[in-house]
Amino acid sequence: MGGVDLARAKRDASLAKVFPILNGVPDASDLPLSSQDLPKAVLSAREIEITEHYTVTKLIELLRERRVTVEEVTRAFLRRAALAQAATNCLTELLWDEAIQRARYLDSLSVPQGVLFGLPISTKEHHGMVGTEVTTSASLVAWIGKKHGSNLLYDTFWNEGCVFFARTTQPQTIMHLETESIVYGKTVNPYNRELTSGGSSGGESALIGMRGSILGVGGDIGGSIRCPAAHVGIYGFKPSIKRISTTGFRNTGTGKETISGCPGPMTVDRDGLELFMKVALSAKPWRIDPALTAKGWAPYTFTSPPKVAVQWWDGVVKPHPPMTRALREVAEACRDAGMEVVDWECDGLDHQKGWDILSALYWPDGGKEILGLLEQTGEPILPLTKFILHEQPTVKDLTQHELWEGSDLNTYRARYAQAWSKTGENGNREVDVILCPPSFGAAIPHGQSRYWGYTSHWNLLDYPAAVFPVTKVDPSLDAKDTAYVPRNSQDKFVHDMYSPERFINAPVSLQVVGRRQEDEKVLAALAEIERAMGRV
Amino acid sequence: MGGVDLARAKRDASLAKVFPILNGVPDASDLPLSSQDLPKAVLSAREIEITEHYTVTKLIELLRERRVTVEEVTRAFLRRAALAQAATNCLTELLWDEAIQRARYLDSLSVPQGVLFGLPISTKEHHGMVGTEVTTSASLVAWIGKKHGSNLLYDTFWNEGCVFFARTTQPQTIMHLETESIVYGKTVNPYNRELTSGGSSGGESALIGMRGSILGVGGDIGGSIRCPAAHVGIYGFKPSIKRISTTGFRNTGTGKETISGCPGPMTVDRDGLELFMKVALSAKPWRIDPALTAKGWAPYTFTSPPKVAVQWWDGVVKPHPPMTRALREVAEACRDAGMEVVDWECDGLDHQKGWDILSALYWPDGGKEILGLLEQTGEPILPLTKFILHEQPTVKDLTQHELWEGSDLNTYRARYAQAWSKTGENGNREVDVILCPPSFGAAIPHGQSRYWGYTSHWNLLDYPAAVFPVTKVDPSLDAKDTAYVPRNSQDKFVHDMYSPERFINAPVSLQVVGRRQEDEKVLAALAEIERAMGRV
Repeated sequence: MGGVDLARAKRDASLAKVFPILNGVPDASDLPLSSQDLPKAVLSAREIEITEHYTVTKLIELLRERRVTVEEVTRAFLRRAALAQAATNCLTELLWDEAIQRARYLDSLSVPQGVLFGLPISTKEHHGMVGTEVTTSASLVAWIGKKHGSNLLYDTFWNEGCVFFARTTQPQTIMHLETESIVYGKTVNPYNRELTSGGSSGGESALIGMRGSILGVGGDIGGSIRCPAAHVGIYGFKPSIKRISTTGFRNTGTGKETISGCPGPMTVDRDGLELFMKVALSAKPWRIDPALTAKGWAPYTFTSPPKVAVQWWDGVVKPHPPMTRALREVAEACRDAGMEVVDWECDGLDHQKGWDILSALYWPDGGKEILGLLEQTGEPILPLTKFILHEQPTVKDLTQHELWEGSDLNTYRARYAQAWSKTGENGNREVDVILCPPSFGAAIPHGQSRYWGYTSHWNLLDYPAAVFPVTKVDPSLDAKDTAYVPRNSQDKFVHDMYSPERFINAPVSLQVVGRRQEDEKVLAALAEIERAMGRV
Repeated sequence: MGGVDLARAKRDASLAKVFPILNGVPDASDLPLSSQDLPKAVLSAREIEITEHYTVTKLIELLRERRVTVEEVTRAFLRRAALAQAATNCLTELLWDEAIQRARYLDSLSVPQGVLFGLPISTKEHHGMVGTEVTTSASLVAWIGKKHGSNLLYDTFWNEGCVFFARTTQPQTIMHLETESIVYGKTVNPYNRELTSGGSSGGESALIGMRGSILGVGGDIGGSIRCPAAHVGIYGFKPSIKRISTTGFRNTGTGKETISGCPGPMTVDRDGLELFMKVALSAKPWRIDPALTAKGWAPYTFTSPPKVAVQWWDGVVKPHPPMTRALREVAEACRDAGMEVVDWECDGLDHQKGWDILSALYWPDGGKEILGLLEQTGEPILPLTKFILHEQPTVKDLTQHELWEGSDLNTYRARYAQAWSKTGENGNREVDVILCPPSFGAAIPHGQSRYWGYTSHWNLLDYPAAVFPVTKVDPSLDAKDTAYVPRNSQDKFVHDMYSPERFINAPVSLQVVGRRQEDEKVLAALAEIERAMGRV
């Protein structure tokens, strides 16, 4: 496992540039439960201003108007990211030298270049990029040191003038809704280190949850953008597949067509989501990547208030009380703002069946490839890897004909689409978006993310979905329902997990889901809902 | 093989309604080489007028304005279709009773219903439809009598007021570029019965080539719309996959995602192509069929003359002289009309490699399913089935990992896209469309369609493509190039096949190809090219 040492040494060397000049960071053993108060103890007022006081678009505006230099912004985020690393273990690498060099180059230009001019962007490790060849391992010990180049999406952002400055952790196999790997260990939630920051883009969420970055790139095949974003109370968006390129990402299962992941934004404000999509699509990536849909970003505008269907639960696992309260609060705000709000009934839609289809299609080779890679270096199989690979009875190496019968998938998708269309029958207006939990609860204690349904269901259907922060767990409002009788063993596991004290102050987020390929409508609906909540 | 008798009996019974009232049809043994003069010997002047004198849109206009009844139009096409059957063996079934009943219903409406009001539409057998349950066999003896219902596309047309009146032949496996099956025998070219009408939608082409229909539905996974349309000098369009639904079609390989077919129009005039697309997409089928791209039909308009690249040949098999002449004539017309016309060089693009990728992906199960179905009834394997299944060294039952490595496909596609983008570099304007042969020549003698490259290459790339009639084979213009030295065995086979006399008067067509998902642009370019040719 010499590769592990190599990867850690590279990370540590990259951090060694900043720690001598970062005063007041507690020792690992003295870290507080919540990391939220650390920045003001460590960073200067100016650094706090730069990293906290601006939205993504506002910061770009300041940069383009040269009211702040790219180098000053970059250094502030580099230092805050290093602090986030100390607090949450969210980085695989700090790009100290590269980012400062890039910043100086951008500052040297007579005219600002690109619509992301000077914006620091953090990136998920397995996406890789130029200059990070030996440390793009997709969390696999076997792949440490295996060369890997840049990717199409990052090239686009680079051409638009961004600064890549930090690379973030993801779990083993990149298929947990938490973030732990043999290479980098465990990433923790910046609001409560006893809780997970979610996964698989949980390095991003911990970093952005600390405002060590304000725009990052995640990827989502079962919830990997939405779950971690929700767990730290930031914004995340899972676009429709084939909208954003994954060309050049490092991962197993390359060429698999059963269920695809998609990259997307994780960010501190809603506008950052749309900015990401606009920039990514304005480059017309479908002219280069033949897997993509040829469709530009066409913003959607509601001419009357959207009709919102609330999915109170999915019929399999009952959400924890703070999640139900968040739904209730937002539904009421929507109703008060003049929206039509109805219930989304899942009981006839059999979400459990959806999971049975999906969990098989994640590993059409029965996991052969990934298990072979783990075995190659004797990399221990982590419990949540076992959960998603070995404990799903559906996972097996499929024959071609068994694969074709994955057309169960299409039947299921068609049935769900029909249910959605049905809401528009008999003189009713069709539902525009579903408002639902992005998880059964707030961030949970480590090692317990064993129910994916609230996010993965929308991957199964390939429906675009955004998450946004709503509230925090409050024991005075979110008492346990001790009278509840769980429906099944998963439901019991989740119900037993809850006590309000355990989750105190953890962010609670919600999810907005649209019909297939209605990405623009989802972001428009999110804006309407947030306006109904009294936000700008 | 009792099923064969059942299917033939059904066909014959359906034709029995019309033959007693169709005078002057020669006996099978007395049929002339070309069937083009038969209609005026058999049909009334009024029937000739209805079936020959109008474009698709004009006929719909007359129907909607009630200047002709649906029943009169339907009866004229039923009779002409029966004649086409006698001449070319293109039908699996004439829907005599059903069509007249439907026509009478439409005539009974106080207000014309639907944008296809009263238009007779002919359909490829394996698409199936309500009322044809026992005879939707996809040319497989094993499936005769197996129940099958309607499909999404046909439901759309039905809702728009069309009349389904004739169902057409396709070859065994629906994977030949000719049309011969154990069930229905061989379909011949209406211009020369010694030549093929192409395939797999060769029943449609023979029928429409006789104007026994003016709008039909074909399907194309390797040339199955374009090859037969080209061989009889009609218009055909292969849209991008995932644009038109195949939900409800009967075929083997259901659920296979490697290479997909797509339905499309075959018609007597260019406007029919766009009408088909508009009607099919105005129903927003992507709301029902989760395999489709959510994208309506958005007509494209050139603001300056298109830039056309001429592919004189594909570097594998040299086209016959009449094809090269057609290219020359149309290229000159385009240049004369002010278009920029350049050459499309294939030598660096390795079309043969494309075929090697494609031919494997047609049968990712190594043909197991289809061979099993043939074996089940002892259905003899026809030579062109052997060609595409047994004689392609690439065909095998793939493991999941071998299937994933079909990502060779994506590499090839990306390389081709790059070559196309490159035409727009260095101050050049990017090529809008490629003008190329839809086949190495005109329709060829039966049993010799053993080179698919001129059409299948665009399936491999998923580029939209239309074919249109240009000229006819003329021995005085199309002498054999006896000095030509073939490059390879396929090239030799095709070269040796040619003599102008053998193909005399056979229609010669060309193909217009656009970049991936630029369907609308292809049809716009076709209109510009035809205008350059002096057509309206």
